Amino acid sequence: MRALRFNDSLTYDPSHPEPPLAEGNTLIAVQTAGICSTDLEICRGYMGFKGILGHEFVGKVLESPAQSLVGKRVCGEINVVCGQCDLCQAGLPTHCRNRSVLGILNHHGAFAERLRLPAANLHVVPDSVDNEQAVFVEPLAAAFQILNQIKLEPHTRVTVLGDGRLGLLVAQVLRTTGAPVRVIGRHPAKLALCEQWSIRSQLQANTEARLDQDVVVDCTGSAAGFELAMGLVRPRGTIVLKSTVAAGKALNLAPLVIDEVTVIGSRCGPFGEAIQALAAGNIDIAPLIQGRMPLEEGVAAMNLASQPGVLKVLINI
Amino acid sequence: MRALRFNDSLTYDPSHPEPPLAEGNTLIAVQTAGICSTDLEICRGYMGFKGILGHEFVGKVLESPAQSLVGKRVCGEINVVCGQCDLCQAGLPTHCRNRSVLGILNHHGAFAERLRLPAANLHVVPDSVDNEQAVFVEPLAAAFQILNQIKLEPHTRVTVLGDGRLGLLVAQVLRTTGAPVRVIGRHPAKLALCEQWSIRSQLQANTEARLDQDVVVDCTGSAAGFELAMGLVRPRGTIVLKSTVAAGKALNLAPLVIDEVTVIGSRCGPFGEAIQALAAGNIDIAPLIQGRMPLEEGVAAMNLASQPGVLKVLINI
Repeated sequence: MRALRFNDSLTYDPSHPEPPLAEGNTLIAVQTAGICSTDLEICRGYMGFKGILGHEFVGKVLESPAQSLVGKRVCGEINVVCGQCDLCQAGLPTHCRNRSVLGILNHHGAFAERLRLPAANLHVVPDSVDNEQAVFVEPLAAAFQILNQIKLEPHTRVTVLGDGRLGLLVAQVLRTTGAPVRVIGRHPAKLALCEQWSIRSQLQANTEARLDQDVVVDCTGSAAGFELAMGLVRPRGTIVLKSTVAAGKALNLAPLVIDEVTVIGSRCGPFGEAIQALAAGNIDIAPLIQGRMPLEEGVAAMNLASQPGVLKVLINI
Repeated sequence: MRALRFNDSLTYDPSHPEPPLAEGNTLIAVQTAGICSTDLEICRGYMGFKGILGHEFVGKVLESPAQSLVGKRVCGEINVVCGQCDLCQAGLPTHCRNRSVLGILNHHGAFAERLRLPAANLHVVPDSVDNEQAVFVEPLAAAFQILNQIKLEPHTRVTVLGDGRLGLLVAQVLRTTGAPVRVIGRHPAKLALCEQWSIRSQLQANTEARLDQDVVVDCTGSAAGFELAMGLVRPRGTIVLKSTVAAGKALNLAPLVIDEVTVIGSRCGPFGEAIQALAAGNIDIAPLIQGRMPLEEGVAAMNLASQPGVLKVLINI
C-alpha cells in the first residue's frame, strides 16, 4: 500500500507491505490525516520511532470484529493499551506501561492507505463534522485534557504561549470556560485570528516577565517556552506543559521553588468532548488549515508543515 | 558588632556597623544559628545577595514594640513583607512582591550578634525546645510546607531524594503521616540513621528508573536530582521540588508531558507546626548536628558545612 515512512529519513513508499491485522483489530481506510509537531519531532529523533508516521486521521472502517462499525467514518485514540498493567487497572490507560502509540511508538501510523487499531479506540464521527474537522479531533482532545487537569474560573488569568497549531486550539478550548484568555505568539496573522475569536493577543517580542498570570499553557514546542512561562506565571500559579521537544536546554528551575509554582504535564485527552465541541460549532477549524496535499507528496507536505508559522497541513489519502 | 558577611567573598567582620532599627522592628540577640545549603549557594552567586548571611536562628528579644516579647527566646520567619501588594492581600505573604528575606534578599541575616525583624515574624520558643532544636524550626517548617501542598495517604508511595540536611528533615516529617517513605541518598551513615527511624532507605548508586512512585521529593540540592526524580515518579505522579540551585542544567522536560507528571515548587512553611512537632518530640534533631563553632570561626564553619555528607553545622554567637 502507499505510505509515508520514517526510517532515518522520510520516504514516500508506493508499495509498503501491508502490516498484519492482529486479532481484535479494526482495519480502516484512511481518508484524511493531519501533520502534527510530534511528527516533525520524530524526524528529528524524538522517541526513536521508525515506521509509518501519523496519528491524526479520519477514515472509513473496512473490517472490524465490531460489526456495527463497518462502513462508518471514524477517528481513533492513539494509545493501544494492554488493559492488564497497574496503570490500566488504576484507570490510567493512556499511560499503559505496555502501550504502543499510533505512528509514535511501535505501531504503524496514519500516513498510509490503511491503518489498524482496536475497535475500542474508535469514535464514530457524526455527519455534522466533515473530514477536515474530524482530523482535528485528536489534537483538540489534547487541548480539552487541560480542563480535566485544572479548574478555570471566570476570573482566572490565562496565557497561552504559542500561536501554532496546538496553541490556537488550546486558546479556543480554554475560552469556552469564560476565563479571560490571552495568546502570546510570534505571528501577527495568527494573533489577528485570535482577535477575530475575541481572544486577546500579544506579540512575544513585546512580552516581559510579569509574574501575574494564574495559568500559563506552554504550547510553543520550544525548550525556550518554559523559561518564558516561568517569567509570566504568578507565585503559586500553574504552568501547563503541552510541548514535547526532543532537545534539552539548560534550565534553572529555582524560580519554580522560590515562587512555589505548579507545573502540570498534559498529553492525550477526551475524544468525546472534542467531537461534541466540533459538532456544536464551538471551535473554528477552517482558518487553521494551510495546506492540502496528496499522500504521494507527503515529504513535501512535511517540509511545508515544518516552515515557521505554517499551521495545519492535511494529507489526503 | 561581630558578623559573618558575604561581599564577593565570605569574611568574618569583628566590627560590622549596627544596621538601623527600622520602625516597628524588634531587636534580637542571636544565640545560635544554623548553616543552610542556601547560605552556601549564595556564596556561589545565588540571589546576588551581599550582606550578613544566615536565616536559621534562635535568639533573645532585646527591644520590641511588642512588649510581651521582650526577654523571650524566639525564632523568626524570614520573609519581611509589605502587607499591601496583591499577593499579601491574596493571603500569600511569603510571596510578597516587595519582600526582603533575612540573610537572602536585602536584609542582613542571623550570623551576627544582633538581627532585626518585625515582631509579627517572631515565634516564642517553648522551654521544652532547646536552642539546638529551635534553630531547626525554619528548615523544619519548610519540610512541613510539603504537607500543605500535597495530601499523603497511608498507601502513598513516597521517595525522598537526598540524605542531606533538608532530606532527613523532610523524611521525618512525611513519615508522621503514616505513608511509606523511602530515602535515596549517597551516604551509608545517613541511610543508617533513616533505618533507625524506621524509614526505608536505598543507596542512589543502586537506584534505577522505575516510574512507580506516587510522590518524589527532590532535596538533593543538585540540578541532577530532578532528572532522577523524573525517572522514579509514576505517570500522573507528583515531584515536589525543594532544592534551589544556582546552576542550570540541560534538561529535557518531555517526560513530564508524556507521563503527565505534576511538579510542585515548595519553599517556606508553617513555623507553628514545626515548633509543635519539636515540642512533642516527633522529630529527632540531635543526630543531624555535626559541628558547633563560634561566630569568629564562621568562615571555617561554612567550609565544614560545604563538605559532602556533612549535616548541620551550628554557629554559636
